[in-house]
Amino acid sequence: MINKLIENIKKTQAPIVVGLDPMMNFIPEHIQKKAFAEYGETLEGAAEAIWQYNKEIVDAVYDLIPAVKPQIAMYEQFGLEGLRTFKKTVDYCKEKGLVVIGDVKRGDIGSTSAAYAAAHLGRVQVGSKTYLPFDEDFATVNPYLGTDGIKPFVDVCRQEKKGLFILVKTSNPSSGEFQDRLVDGRPLYELVGEQVAKWGEDCMGEDYSYIGAVVGATYPEMGKTLRKIMPKSFILVPGYGAQGGKGADLVHFFNEDGLGAIVNSSRGIIAAYKQEKYAKFGAEHFAEASRAAVEDMAADIQGALESR
Amino acid sequence: MINKLIENIKKTQAPIVVGLDPMMNFIPEHIQKKAFAEYGETLEGAAEAIWQYNKEIVDAVYDLIPAVKPQIAMYEQFGLEGLRTFKKTVDYCKEKGLVVIGDVKRGDIGSTSAAYAAAHLGRVQVGSKTYLPFDEDFATVNPYLGTDGIKPFVDVCRQEKKGLFILVKTSNPSSGEFQDRLVDGRPLYELVGEQVAKWGEDCMGEDYSYIGAVVGATYPEMGKTLRKIMPKSFILVPGYGAQGGKGADLVHFFNEDGLGAIVNSSRGIIAAYKQEKYAKFGAEHFAEASRAAVEDMAADIQGALESR
Repeated sequence: MINKLIENIKKTQAPIVVGLDPMMNFIPEHIQKKAFAEYGETLEGAAEAIWQYNKEIVDAVYDLIPAVKPQIAMYEQFGLEGLRTFKKTVDYCKEKGLVVIGDVKRGDIGSTSAAYAAAHLGRVQVGSKTYLPFDEDFATVNPYLGTDGIKPFVDVCRQEKKGLFILVKTSNPSSGEFQDRLVDGRPLYELVGEQVAKWGEDCMGEDYSYIGAVVGATYPEMGKTLRKIMPKSFILVPGYGAQGGKGADLVHFFNEDGLGAIVNSSRGIIAAYKQEKYAKFGAEHFAEASRAAVEDMAADIQGALESR
Repeated sequence: MINKLIENIKKTQAPIVVGLDPMMNFIPEHIQKKAFAEYGETLEGAAEAIWQYNKEIVDAVYDLIPAVKPQIAMYEQFGLEGLRTFKKTVDYCKEKGLVVIGDVKRGDIGSTSAAYAAAHLGRVQVGSKTYLPFDEDFATVNPYLGTDGIKPFVDVCRQEKKGLFILVKTSNPSSGEFQDRLVDGRPLYELVGEQVAKWGEDCMGEDYSYIGAVVGATYPEMGKTLRKIMPKSFILVPGYGAQGGKGADLVHFFNEDGLGAIVNSSRGIIAAYKQEKYAKFGAEHFAEASRAAVEDMAADIQGALESR
């Protein structure tokens, strides 16, 4: 799947992932009204509104981008109905040729991690049959529990040709509370980065490992160091746009080959119509605003990469 | 909810939580056969088998224990149908008067953590209506992202009178990889423990905070230190039984008042009939074996507490 991700990036010339993290207040009123008219103000109605919203955005941008990253929490909060829309979104994006990164940040130990891996990347046995429950292409994983927590995910990735992005240095302001603490004079996130490189050693696609890392756009200097520590790991970079990261901050996350990183934007794309810059599209044409925002983001990053 | 947990512990005289972590190979054949006959070898069939298995165990042990801890991964791996059984299990246990700890180990930042908190402990707004999606009493949470990741959960707990158990030192062999690394001469898990105490300061029930911690039974010496660092935090202790923890190892997790900890056992209870010790019950009477295992575990821990 790492090879397909790279192929998609080369095809689109845009190392971009759109975060499908729908919040109710992003969804234009006309979509909410229609869904509530059909299903009432219920979890089912909310799930339907999210689905229609996602679908219109995906239809508007799929040819410009290599991948999407649905954040499962935004669906999980609407219970089973929300998760049904998560699954529909995953399937629809895959039909459109997109790579789907399930932003699930799961992490546990042994048989429990194996169960999460089966849920999101693998298959589950029921009697003589097997099923693929959520079937994303990549999943994000939390490293706090160490190798016991990661290995079951890696095993499933190897079997299924899927991949991981393991949290190394997150984009939020308080990420330093634990991640930056010095261990033998070096911050913890560097040690985690070293482990990611080690976990990924035997998991090579053509040029990159399918065991990647998450490093926030908001910490470009740390990105520079981590890029060197994990030369063969793809880096998923959240925090562009709404969280403050800019194109120029991002060049250090890429290798000399122009690859090695994929930058996420969520509300900056999916709620673009709410920004002054794209207000002219109006709520009715929210998906066109998203397309314009993708084009601008791609140009910003491509420009920064060319002028480095 | 922390007050109810303590009340339940006092009533049952058993600081025990039963981990409802069903794996297909724990479920007796007669239950699987019946479910598959009705629903086929499908995700629905697996979910029905898990539900019948859980229900029989809960019916057999609910009067002996204060709480249960369903591990959501074991349900999530059967997709939406599995999660439907998770929800049914949560509801059923609450009807039986049990405190339900959702072992979900979620953790993200800002609005995403808020969405997870709404999903598992709080409520979600749909138009003019509100819904309680999964509605557990406590949830387990991962601290790697720092205060930004924890605060949205704490806020929901305060509103809804729910609680958290935050991962501090996990029970698995490789938990030390990051958690034991020395920061200014002290292991990382101690710093996390200090933060748990701090996050929980303004979240007091009668005697204990509703912001608790997870510390593995397999590390009793560390439990002793952490007990002192977090005097007002309840400690959820996994790793008893199958993972190697014994009653005598556990006394350090408790305060002088005999409270402050609750010890989890999962397969040691729910798959007790597979152990030689309880084999006499047979697969048909698996739930009676679980009841005997709960009684033995309660006696082991009570004995250790009395002889300290």
